[in-house]
Amino acid sequence: MNTRQLIDLAQQLRVDSVRAADAAGSGHPTSSMSAADVMAVMLANHTRYDFERPQHPGNDRFVLSKGHASPLLYAAYKAAGALNEAELLTFRKAGSRLEGHPTPRRLPWVETATGSLGQGLPVGVGIALAGKRLDRTGYRVRVLCGDSELAEGSVWEAAEHAGHEHLDNLTVIVDVNRLGQRGPTRHGHDLDAYARRFGAFDWHTVEVDGHDVDAIDRAFLEADSTSGQPTVILARTLKGKGVASVQDREGLHGKPLPDAEEAIAELGGVHDRRVEVRQPPAARMLHAVRSGHLDLPRFETGDEVATRDAFGKALAALGGARGDVVALDGEVGDSTRAEFFAKEHPERYFECYIAEQQLVATAVGMATRGWVPYASTFAAFLTRAHDFVRMASVSGTGVNLVGSHAGVAIGQDGPSQMGLEDLAMFRSVYDSTVLYPCDANQTAKLVVTMAGLEGIRYLRTSRGESPVIYSATEEFPVGGSKVLRASADDRLTLVAAGVTVHEALAAAEALDREGIQARVIDLYSVKPVDRATLREAAEETGCLVTVEDHREEGGLGDAVLDAFTDGRPVPRLVRLAVRTMPGSASPDEQLRAAGIDAGSIAAAGRLLVETAMVR
Amino acid sequence: MNTRQLIDLAQQLRVDSVRAADAAGSGHPTSSMSAADVMAVMLANHTRYDFERPQHPGNDRFVLSKGHASPLLYAAYKAAGALNEAELLTFRKAGSRLEGHPTPRRLPWVETATGSLGQGLPVGVGIALAGKRLDRTGYRVRVLCGDSELAEGSVWEAAEHAGHEHLDNLTVIVDVNRLGQRGPTRHGHDLDAYARRFGAFDWHTVEVDGHDVDAIDRAFLEADSTSGQPTVILARTLKGKGVASVQDREGLHGKPLPDAEEAIAELGGVHDRRVEVRQPPAARMLHAVRSGHLDLPRFETGDEVATRDAFGKALAALGGARGDVVALDGEVGDSTRAEFFAKEHPERYFECYIAEQQLVATAVGMATRGWVPYASTFAAFLTRAHDFVRMASVSGTGVNLVGSHAGVAIGQDGPSQMGLEDLAMFRSVYDSTVLYPCDANQTAKLVVTMAGLEGIRYLRTSRGESPVIYSATEEFPVGGSKVLRASADDRLTLVAAGVTVHEALAAAEALDREGIQARVIDLYSVKPVDRATLREAAEETGCLVTVEDHREEGGLGDAVLDAFTDGRPVPRLVRLAVRTMPGSASPDEQLRAAGIDAGSIAAAGRLLVETAMVR
Repeated sequence: MNTRQLIDLAQQLRVDSVRAADAAGSGHPTSSMSAADVMAVMLANHTRYDFERPQHPGNDRFVLSKGHASPLLYAAYKAAGALNEAELLTFRKAGSRLEGHPTPRRLPWVETATGSLGQGLPVGVGIALAGKRLDRTGYRVRVLCGDSELAEGSVWEAAEHAGHEHLDNLTVIVDVNRLGQRGPTRHGHDLDAYARRFGAFDWHTVEVDGHDVDAIDRAFLEADSTSGQPTVILARTLKGKGVASVQDREGLHGKPLPDAEEAIAELGGVHDRRVEVRQPPAARMLHAVRSGHLDLPRFETGDEVATRDAFGKALAALGGARGDVVALDGEVGDSTRAEFFAKEHPERYFECYIAEQQLVATAVGMATRGWVPYASTFAAFLTRAHDFVRMASVSGTGVNLVGSHAGVAIGQDGPSQMGLEDLAMFRSVYDSTVLYPCDANQTAKLVVTMAGLEGIRYLRTSRGESPVIYSATEEFPVGGSKVLRASADDRLTLVAAGVTVHEALAAAEALDREGIQARVIDLYSVKPVDRATLREAAEETGCLVTVEDHREEGGLGDAVLDAFTDGRPVPRLVRLAVRTMPGSASPDEQLRAAGIDAGSIAAAGRLLVETAMVR
Repeated sequence: MNTRQLIDLAQQLRVDSVRAADAAGSGHPTSSMSAADVMAVMLANHTRYDFERPQHPGNDRFVLSKGHASPLLYAAYKAAGALNEAELLTFRKAGSRLEGHPTPRRLPWVETATGSLGQGLPVGVGIALAGKRLDRTGYRVRVLCGDSELAEGSVWEAAEHAGHEHLDNLTVIVDVNRLGQRGPTRHGHDLDAYARRFGAFDWHTVEVDGHDVDAIDRAFLEADSTSGQPTVILARTLKGKGVASVQDREGLHGKPLPDAEEAIAELGGVHDRRVEVRQPPAARMLHAVRSGHLDLPRFETGDEVATRDAFGKALAALGGARGDVVALDGEVGDSTRAEFFAKEHPERYFECYIAEQQLVATAVGMATRGWVPYASTFAAFLTRAHDFVRMASVSGTGVNLVGSHAGVAIGQDGPSQMGLEDLAMFRSVYDSTVLYPCDANQTAKLVVTMAGLEGIRYLRTSRGESPVIYSATEEFPVGGSKVLRASADDRLTLVAAGVTVHEALAAAEALDREGIQARVIDLYSVKPVDRATLREAAEETGCLVTVEDHREEGGLGDAVLDAFTDGRPVPRLVRLAVRTMPGSASPDEQLRAAGIDAGSIAAAGRLLVETAMVR
């Protein structure tokens, strides 16, 4: 498109943004208007995309990091012919695909859900990394950021990652409109301030007037021709550009224009100009073609093996069988054992350093391109990426996350390193799966199983060694459990997972010596939970004791209760969990101090059975 | 101390680090040895600190961001006479104050718990901000970081904050030993790479040989005399410095030295040199002196008021009564209503921009200095700071966190903006309090109450207006609840909080018209929970329905179950929560779609009562 056409297209995007927000009665038209010229130039002159085939491997990828500017995105889709007029005006209404913030759950052209600021660039970096090192089909990744969101550390975590990886297939455009939600941003229109920062992280920087379509056009060309570095285009813009009554004014964030009709007239009226978006080049997916025999590690029952070791070995084996599996490390691969994968498949191993937000964002970005990522770090440090996990679930993107060093059982390192809130965090995420194996063969099987699930899949591993109790041929369906000990005389049920399974088994033996028979259930699938088996155990034994190496809120105990919220009678129940703030101590001392060792379990079980008899 | 003495002191710190880790059989001596010269110079020649009075308002403040180098810190405490030889050798043992990673729960000289990397600087920025704008007693804040942790975005979020606030009372020392846990860092010994980054964020930078005590000494003087900017001292060091067999070698992170005896000999043997740390200047606390009458806002029953509005007004009033209350905003103060505080107390209001990790870290830092911070943003975005909240609880630092725009009830903005996991997150944190008011007077009272609690206190507020149902004189103790409707004929109990209280009341009225009496409990204290009232309701009515605008895991429903895990019989129970992924829709449509509106509650209650009768 030439200058005149680009200007006209940009005005149409503004008009359609104003119209959509006006029809909705809410939304962010002024944040859309500032970036309309950038969007018009990018769409008309620089994007290669087949709207009929959003999964085309040659398609360029676009992420609207400032997701509240969704009216602009939808206006662009309309200009590209992907949406019609009528649908545009369903914006923000119940049942519409055009949500307040765009998500790929509803719209096939959206790569990742945005709306939590500072996440679009990190995910874009993940996509660009996939493009550069995995897909290699030549697509470019473009991310449109707001200026306010550059206050998020995650943006600089991503900038560091992209600079270090020389992602010259990545272009970021910052819509520097100087106004955030509640007033001026930190740096206002000081483009140099942003340029210094990106430059320091080894980016190529371009500063432009964000309302000069020719300058923008040249900036995109410069970005495309820059090699060895990602490029950021810093665009000086005005919020609400084009309508005098709102332009560059405070207090108008997230509000429809006061007089939409007048504004539309001022912007040149309603038009239905179309953009012929360039088609992508022919390209094919690499990762679909490779697969081989799965040679999963097998562990001998009775041997002592840490589940983190089993994870590393199983992942390496899975990587041999599936060419689409990739592994990501947060600079603790020697501890999580992700390094076992690195040794066998270095070309599919990604070091994300100590940057857990980028670790998860890279996984999300790669998953959007069809790869099957396993991102691992200490369970405790995955809390750093909670908001990224939450947004991945909004996207509906499937990623495998593995947290090692769970619970007080890690011993001397103390509470900062203990994952004690991870089960609660992952259980509360929509459509998640939470798995917590207690032995090596179970771990290996679950590592393979999780790859085939939808949504967020979390595997919790342990630092210390524990006995292998299952044979290598045993199966562990998601939503299942294993009854490790049962008799007709059972008077209570011990429900455990991970390290506490072994403690529960020892407790059951101790109780047996006193003449109290206890059932033991290994609840390796914490979510979804095996309601039928728990219900049956409750009905047959009457009493349940849950025991977990986790805080008492939101973990295994609460998961067990899930089975009893259907209005039917509930068993007597006691739960054992970590209720103190641990210090340093040996693993055995930690379990005892937290009251989740065999002795504590037996004591609780004994008391519960006696109480139940009396009443 | 002169050059010779400093060198000797540094060697002693190395020796004591080696000894401590050797006695423990674990720990991070090589990470301690790289920073020993920096520590020696800082302690002997630049620190002003009274170890007898850690709360002295004139004390300099030190944060060991690389918390795994705890042996070095404890060796320094020993050199300063604060610890003795015997205690040093209890390192990492059960019951010892000398944990694997230092925490203020056990040691009075530790400002904040570290061990989750990238958090020491953010908290240090909070302390420095308190020093500069609140305490004004002239203390300096020094933070010792590792190089690996500079990959964390939170470090750059903090760097941006410190540069923008001109925190010239802050000195950061980066121990650039080039080796992380699993191998080389991103930038190795390229000090310029780090200098460019800090410089871009408006810091003064100094590069030194981190084993040249005179150069280090000059660097600290330069930092102290730099005005208008924070200073970073980039110290080029060698991991394991001083012992040839481990120096600058990979694969030795977090391990005692292979031959401690030989290493100690190589380092010059065991000594017990003492440092006379300079005393702080006379100074007094500002915040203890001011307090006045609390003129809390009062709302008329029947009026429609959003709880976020009540929060803002109550916080502004509390700020008038208490001079130690400060408010922090994540650039959404117009939405959370924190801006009401800003208008009345601008000198105690801190804009943290869109940077939730720094928002919470600033609150933690200020709390360590005795201030009472209220940090607020959208509930959804507090997930961004989950790891900071977790570490604040390890510290035992008391902060007030307020999350607005909770649940699907926000309406059109969609899932990215909906706090649906916040209750689970905050409940799972050790020693936390979780409050969720349903009306304006209740909110106002709880805002005041939370200031007086220990640990993490979370208040959840709502976007939309709801009727005031309590008089302004009603009291709301933590751990309590309100029975809003009860009779001798109640056949079920509806348990709700926040927006669902009003839905539950409407449901009870609808059931009443059908001849089913329902009790209604407002469970505003989600943690701790009112076990007695819930137990009584269960025994008297037999059936419970919980209803919450939150995911079904870890929230109100699980909190209610807490009351029934004491081994006594449990009522029949059904819980209603958000089980879908919402899109955009009006608040009423959202509640209905999620099945947590009055109609859904009534239907669930009806079914539960009928089921209970049949069986």
